[in-house]
Amino acid sequence: MSLKVVSRSFRTLSYVGSYKKIRDRPLKLYCAAIIGAGYVAYTQHKNNKAEMKEIMSLRSYMAEPVTPISQLEKNPDDMKTQMELLIMRIQAEFCKALEKEEDMEAKFKVDRWTRAEGGGGITCVLQDGRVFEKAGVNISVVSGTLPPPAVQQMKSRGKNFENKELPFFAAGVSAVIHPRNPMVPTIHFNYRYFEVQDKNETHWWFGGGTDLTPYYLNEEDAVHFHLTLKHACDSHDKSFYPKFKKWCDDYFLLTHRGERRGVGGIFFDDVDYPDRERAFAFVTSCAEAVIPSYLPLVQKHKDAAYGYAERQWQLLRRGRYVEFNLVHDRGTKFGLHTPGARIESILMSLPLTAKWEYMNVPAPNTPEDKLMQVLKQPRDWLKIENSKSRSL
Amino acid sequence: MSLKVVSRSFRTLSYVGSYKKIRDRPLKLYCAAIIGAGYVAYTQHKNNKAEMKEIMSLRSYMAEPVTPISQLEKNPDDMKTQMELLIMRIQAEFCKALEKEEDMEAKFKVDRWTRAEGGGGITCVLQDGRVFEKAGVNISVVSGTLPPPAVQQMKSRGKNFENKELPFFAAGVSAVIHPRNPMVPTIHFNYRYFEVQDKNETHWWFGGGTDLTPYYLNEEDAVHFHLTLKHACDSHDKSFYPKFKKWCDDYFLLTHRGERRGVGGIFFDDVDYPDRERAFAFVTSCAEAVIPSYLPLVQKHKDAAYGYAERQWQLLRRGRYVEFNLVHDRGTKFGLHTPGARIESILMSLPLTAKWEYMNVPAPNTPEDKLMQVLKQPRDWLKIENSKSRSL
Repeated sequence: MSLKVVSRSFRTLSYVGSYKKIRDRPLKLYCAAIIGAGYVAYTQHKNNKAEMKEIMSLRSYMAEPVTPISQLEKNPDDMKTQMELLIMRIQAEFCKALEKEEDMEAKFKVDRWTRAEGGGGITCVLQDGRVFEKAGVNISVVSGTLPPPAVQQMKSRGKNFENKELPFFAAGVSAVIHPRNPMVPTIHFNYRYFEVQDKNETHWWFGGGTDLTPYYLNEEDAVHFHLTLKHACDSHDKSFYPKFKKWCDDYFLLTHRGERRGVGGIFFDDVDYPDRERAFAFVTSCAEAVIPSYLPLVQKHKDAAYGYAERQWQLLRRGRYVEFNLVHDRGTKFGLHTPGARIESILMSLPLTAKWEYMNVPAPNTPEDKLMQVLKQPRDWLKIENSKSRSL
Repeated sequence: MSLKVVSRSFRTLSYVGSYKKIRDRPLKLYCAAIIGAGYVAYTQHKNNKAEMKEIMSLRSYMAEPVTPISQLEKNPDDMKTQMELLIMRIQAEFCKALEKEEDMEAKFKVDRWTRAEGGGGITCVLQDGRVFEKAGVNISVVSGTLPPPAVQQMKSRGKNFENKELPFFAAGVSAVIHPRNPMVPTIHFNYRYFEVQDKNETHWWFGGGTDLTPYYLNEEDAVHFHLTLKHACDSHDKSFYPKFKKWCDDYFLLTHRGERRGVGGIFFDDVDYPDRERAFAFVTSCAEAVIPSYLPLVQKHKDAAYGYAERQWQLLRRGRYVEFNLVHDRGTKFGLHTPGARIESILMSLPLTAKWEYMNVPAPNTPEDKLMQVLKQPRDWLKIENSKSRSL
């Protein structure tokens, strides 16, 4: 393995006072965003460049950035810098928001790792908590040379590259949260920026998405989740939500089961429109919508009553999550076949425990069956929403 | 789904008396085969053709054959008939041998299913037993038209086919046994026969293998297992065992982890030598070696003491089993991407329960670490064997 792993715990440094100030501030805003009738636009989108110095000096991130701070400071307008700062901030805010739902002793373990071929990442995992059975939040900032099969795969998606090795840069944040209580859904999100050099031209694009996987269907939750994502999309382009909602339903399909993984969300790739700054602003809005889309569901259900049967059903559905990630997910497959990739960071998305029972088919009209019907036939959640209260 | 599933329980028919006679007979031979110093050649290889009537009338199989009995009786010399009778017999003998190790109430559930495109199968699963947490033994006898990607895949292995749809026939037995006690290894085996029609020519070949996945390394077990397989191979061709042992080590490699799945065994494909009858005799010997290679290990360890830590380690290793089957295994991948395939029969190989912990690395010199060393660097077990007692 060509990886160097350095475990850091910035929380143990003596910056607790000022750091706590930063830590609590966004959360209050999130709470404000979700309280009241309906969705209050989450206006936390700040100018990363202006904030860079303040944030760095306060050590609000989970670890030191992958790119040396001096280099980031020298290139504040570079999209590579802006994206790295965005994913650092999203990672830290999300980890801290999750920790607030946990018992005091449950904290994210932080591994900062470097990659011999260029770049590295910060992997944060909270395992075996009371609320979260396994929560993984990973960022990676890597560069190097794309192997020909990867170039070929991108060409098959319509990229006009020469079919040979090409220099690339990729920065992304990716998270999968598996809560313990079967009434709390699993969430996954991933936002990434890509640059590929071909001759003298820099090709760039963004990709990402956020999707929800409940074990028991709660229609209000699904509506809240989709509505939050829709608002994040609508402020940039009204055509985005319907397009990316459908893309999500199509992507998270276990073809061999004829089931979706969950109730969907948004998913997109190759976003290079209308221009780089506005595409980045769109991705920023999506990434900032994660907490308000999900944390209310955690708070609402984390102490819900459940028994052995519900736990068993959750574990069976987690088996399906494993099937999707190992058989279908493009990112996981790409990672597993990339020499020098950090396997533990790629597979942190897998649940702590999963089950496979032969021929487990829920009886008709049970809560389990109700979920299955939605997985077989995705719904347009925001049509339902019109006839229901928007409040949780 | 284009499948019709008929659950049968032949055991509930009123043939118990005569059936029991058949059932006990091979087991006494297996016991004889494993008691005493060294391996006594297992001479249970009978002429399927001569036995057909006797076996069928006694209903010793798990269910009615996939091919109508009248058709089998009309073509006793056809290799398709011989292979179907072999896999029916191997399935029944193995299921009954496993049930004998279980508590009385734990029995295989038998599903006989048909496939709209042609053929079908018999899937036997014993779940949540005291000794076996999940045991699946499947046979399938299918025919139809190979889709172009499958033909392409076979061509890439050196088959000289035209690159288009071709009529085919495939019959095979496949089993994965996940015991509850972490001291009992998991076994997998699969033996199959393939026919493909190209123009006026029938191409045929056999494939298969048997491999062992321990959770705790017991060197005597590994030696016994490999020695039993070696004897089965040696009676046909002395070059087979070394060749197929290496093939097994190479095949069951989790490339992304740099680990083998277990301590290996034998694995082969495209065996069309020296001729069809002798290739079939070789496959018969391998399939008949499964019980003597494995049942002694079950009997030896099924009541071994273990605790929470050993169970947790077993579940983590089962996560690796899932990874191999979903990411690498050719048969599973082929099945998952075949329209109309019976998914529950393909995925019966997955364990009842599996775990994924972030960064679980055994401490040096622990029993868990001892296993990892062997998985990273496969051994030649029969060299070790020379300096040790061969008896269990």
